[in-house]
Amino acid sequence: MSTDSNLNEAEAREQLLDLAADFYDQFAEGDVPTMQIPTRTKSNIEYDEDKDVWVYGDRSSTRSAKTVSGAQKLLKATYTIDFLAQQLEEDRSSTLRELYYLSESWDLDEAQFNTQDESNNLIEDLEIVSEVKREDFHMRPEESGAKVMGPLLLREQTRRGDREIHCQDDVGQGGYQIPNNPDTIEFLDNDADFVLCVETGGMRDRLVENGFDDEYDSIVVHLGGQPARATRRLTKRLHDELDLPVVVFTDGDPWSYRIYGSVAYGSIKSAHLSEYLATPEAQFIGIRPEDIVEYDLPTDPLSDSDINALESELEDPRFQTEFWEEQIELQLDIGKKSEQQALASRGLDFVTDTYLPERLTEMGVL
Amino acid sequence: MSTDSNLNEAEAREQLLDLAADFYDQFAEGDVPTMQIPTRTKSNIEYDEDKDVWVYGDRSSTRSAKTVSGAQKLLKATYTIDFLAQQLEEDRSSTLRELYYLSESWDLDEAQFNTQDESNNLIEDLEIVSEVKREDFHMRPEESGAKVMGPLLLREQTRRGDREIHCQDDVGQGGYQIPNNPDTIEFLDNDADFVLCVETGGMRDRLVENGFDDEYDSIVVHLGGQPARATRRLTKRLHDELDLPVVVFTDGDPWSYRIYGSVAYGSIKSAHLSEYLATPEAQFIGIRPEDIVEYDLPTDPLSDSDINALESELEDPRFQTEFWEEQIELQLDIGKKSEQQALASRGLDFVTDTYLPERLTEMGVL
Repeated sequence: MSTDSNLNEAEAREQLLDLAADFYDQFAEGDVPTMQIPTRTKSNIEYDEDKDVWVYGDRSSTRSAKTVSGAQKLLKATYTIDFLAQQLEEDRSSTLRELYYLSESWDLDEAQFNTQDESNNLIEDLEIVSEVKREDFHMRPEESGAKVMGPLLLREQTRRGDREIHCQDDVGQGGYQIPNNPDTIEFLDNDADFVLCVETGGMRDRLVENGFDDEYDSIVVHLGGQPARATRRLTKRLHDELDLPVVVFTDGDPWSYRIYGSVAYGSIKSAHLSEYLATPEAQFIGIRPEDIVEYDLPTDPLSDSDINALESELEDPRFQTEFWEEQIELQLDIGKKSEQQALASRGLDFVTDTYLPERLTEMGVL
Repeated sequence: MSTDSNLNEAEAREQLLDLAADFYDQFAEGDVPTMQIPTRTKSNIEYDEDKDVWVYGDRSSTRSAKTVSGAQKLLKATYTIDFLAQQLEEDRSSTLRELYYLSESWDLDEAQFNTQDESNNLIEDLEIVSEVKREDFHMRPEESGAKVMGPLLLREQTRRGDREIHCQDDVGQGGYQIPNNPDTIEFLDNDADFVLCVETGGMRDRLVENGFDDEYDSIVVHLGGQPARATRRLTKRLHDELDLPVVVFTDGDPWSYRIYGSVAYGSIKSAHLSEYLATPEAQFIGIRPEDIVEYDLPTDPLSDSDINALESELEDPRFQTEFWEEQIELQLDIGKKSEQQALASRGLDFVTDTYLPERLTEMGVL
């Protein structure tokens, strides 16, 4: 997949239309039209040791027009390709939800989507088969609200012209809002030493109020829970293009470790885009189970689902390192979890005066 | 409550310390310390017909140090006042969640909060009794992610100095991020004819992509679901200070009507702040049940909880108008609900070319 570079509208359009042309050729040769799609389940995900990311394995399934349901899927694909091609021609964009509703305006009832899952899945299928990213189809996600604060000057290409924005001097306390497609951003200049991805809004606001980004020349990226594709893409670009170390700062529970995992290694759902979205060099700064012990943080007991999630992480190749095995086993042992903001129990400045500087020094980032 | 003006740090601090001084005086006079707090339940909420907002009624309860639990509540209040007074003196701020954790660092175990609900409620009590708003205590909410796009030039006072930002020319596609305390904003100039508050991110992005804010001189405020206090406050200020009509555009279901209700009339939880947060002149633009019929929108069936919510809205004085009774009864009759983005079933431009302009003309806004 040509994930490293961006396709322009014409290229993306062509690769999509090629798919429809395949159906046409199959018809012309008297064959029943089919489409090959990699199996997108956990059993067909492989961890690529060289690239340190998740990718799909060799298994694939065939959608064939031989059956009514297969034919209907290909019909829907064709209508969707037609819509996307038109959207690209007009330099428009739309959300996944709009596509679902829009299908109601299609003349053939059989081509309309029954659920949004169906249209979402089709878009992911088309991404994989056409080797065009959703962003290059101009399909937008629902907004994520993620934002950036730090010593970074960028140029964003908007529909209303280019905007040059410094992510400290030209923004309010709320920071710079990451656009749906961060590949419209060009990095112009920066004084940053590293990128700090932060899970919660409360902690992000704490760091900004305490001037952490300014004092430590850090680009603070707010993840806002499980990060959107746009946020992961921007993080990867900051790492690759500006050669900045990336550290991830989350709550200390298994769900937050998955947030780290999705920044660093990608997710099963978007394994076809791991090279475009994942930053395998990203390091996990905390909250670590060892922090809960060392700093005597306020905790909650692990629930059953927390314990299950931790145990399944022990089986997950992304977490099969000495560091993670030690931390996860410690956590299962103490039976507790802590939030980022629990650091406030040591005072509001503890996180920026002590916790982060010490840990960053230990990790060799400072 | 002095909700219309902002207190400076010294004034807020003084009003807080006065509360603690009351306890001191009660002790000095040999009385058992007490605190009077309006009862904050649905039964003590009144609709103020003159001001068109919800306010608390006359009922109040007394917290007295006569009982152990009452004494403990006053102790927690005293520690919290001490923390807030120090925070104001240092011109710092913190989140509600940080306060909860921070209490673990207090020397007296009995003063520590057991749950975050407890500390949240205490802050609301202190707001009411001290007549100082949470924002003036410098207590921040968790971020809301709400944002603004439109022909508005503003100056935001940040901890790093003032920032002049035009909410079209100086921001990316993502718009201007509303800060936690929008009273740090000064409106400098605008070319706006009205304010359009939009529930979902997908629709907000549609309006921005279609250039609706530009073509119709509209300030588009993204609510992001149930709007945060900051978003409601900013909306009210745009209305009051710039004399702009406000219209609210949400999904067509009972939960979204409540979003409209909270923008227009305030909520039970923050009835003590209605005058500061509510915009009674805000009008509801849609999605209306009549739109579902007229435009034959894609729908979902009403669930039992939808039906209950609609029926309870019929009992709610905020919705006891001819308009709402007609719409809610129609909705119960057709048994269906629709989302904003369902308008895409008539094409991606239908909302900006037809739906909104027609409705705004009908409402006398355009």
